[in-house]
Amino acid sequence: METTHLSQHISSRFNEDLEAVRADLLAMGGLVEEQLRRSLAALADADSALAGEVVRDDAKVNRMEVAIDEECLRILATRAPTAGDLRLIVAIIKAITDLERIGDEARKIANIALRLATLERPADRYREIRHLGRLVEGMVHDALDAFARMDVDAALRVAQHDRHVDEEYESIQRQCVTFMMEDPRQIRRTLDVTWAARALERVGDHATNIGEYVVYMVHGEDIRHTRIEEVETRIRPRADESDEA
Amino acid sequence: METTHLSQHISSRFNEDLEAVRADLLAMGGLVEEQLRRSLAALADADSALAGEVVRDDAKVNRMEVAIDEECLRILATRAPTAGDLRLIVAIIKAITDLERIGDEARKIANIALRLATLERPADRYREIRHLGRLVEGMVHDALDAFARMDVDAALRVAQHDRHVDEEYESIQRQCVTFMMEDPRQIRRTLDVTWAARALERVGDHATNIGEYVVYMVHGEDIRHTRIEEVETRIRPRADESDEA
Repeated sequence: METTHLSQHISSRFNEDLEAVRADLLAMGGLVEEQLRRSLAALADADSALAGEVVRDDAKVNRMEVAIDEECLRILATRAPTAGDLRLIVAIIKAITDLERIGDEARKIANIALRLATLERPADRYREIRHLGRLVEGMVHDALDAFARMDVDAALRVAQHDRHVDEEYESIQRQCVTFMMEDPRQIRRTLDVTWAARALERVGDHATNIGEYVVYMVHGEDIRHTRIEEVETRIRPRADESDEA
Repeated sequence: METTHLSQHISSRFNEDLEAVRADLLAMGGLVEEQLRRSLAALADADSALAGEVVRDDAKVNRMEVAIDEECLRILATRAPTAGDLRLIVAIIKAITDLERIGDEARKIANIALRLATLERPADRYREIRHLGRLVEGMVHDALDAFARMDVDAALRVAQHDRHVDEEYESIQRQCVTFMMEDPRQIRRTLDVTWAARALERVGDHATNIGEYVVYMVHGEDIRHTRIEEVETRIRPRADESDEA
């Protein structure tokens, strides 16, 4: 009985550790979402003060990454987790790198907002960028939600949205080229718009990575570099196939 | 004696595992260096066949990442490494992500080379890109070398070179803006040059990340997000300071 109590006690402490580090990841994700949201608002509203806050708060994101990384290492060293617990820790170690880089992209957008705020705003307040921004904000939110609920279907949907982001991004690039050709005096400003679009496209990639870690965590299968259709075929129940047969 | 032999046997098997996965990382690094070198040669020589090889071989890089990742997880699960061994495994898990992304950037440069190969080449064969390319190739090589020899000083020098890369990159961007303003018919081609420069700048960032993992592996200290000067002050021997006092 003593031993059982002790091992239950250790196991419950271990679960608390895992739960705490998972909560820290989601808190970091919340801050990164906020950074992204504010950087896009700063761009649309030519709000230099808000852009300055985003640049300043990037240090908070970085500190959270280091703290979570250290906590994961402590758990690996002291608890020697295996199977699903090990995959959770490794998924967190990987996901915080992507979250930190989403934070970097938000900081880049804020820096672009600072430059653009000194120029006259276009009447549409960078409509295409705002549209692309909403798409990738949704992806980041869904990826974190999928992580929180270990929801593989939701995680796979993130990767599907990434195609729309890539299409939207290509479309903005084409528009910008046309615009620069028509009015070379706008090249500097237009290049800044292309950099902002590129930053958002990269945020979409990082959200997709986080979605892939969820699948890896739940299924123990590495779906990176696998076509999303193949993954869906492998993971989803075979019911649809037998219906067709 | 029996027990000692057994534990020595286990320990030697463990060291073989660590040595094998470290060798795999360096092999992956070698392939990524080759991909980068070939993508830049394809750009300078308008060599579509070579560019096609780079795009095709990116799948090899991706397969190596997945294989090394799985091997690291197996070691974490079966050997439960601690201290320096644990840091080595986590550093490898992180470093292969950056190597894979350097491979992605090489593939992007190869795709740009495919587009530019259909246009007339400028007389200087993209001199600035070749120059920036040599700088970042050197950084990737030095970062891998520092990893192989666990050489903290060499790893710190990689981060120092990243400043030159950033300056060179900014200079290329400014030139491209001027060039596009002077001759709007060249905007498409010039934008491709700016994308290539941006890809190289990102390769420099990834090489810097790998350098930081070396310091983390050797010193157990997380220097990410720390100003390089502070790190040098903390890590280097205090002899210089006492000389000045």
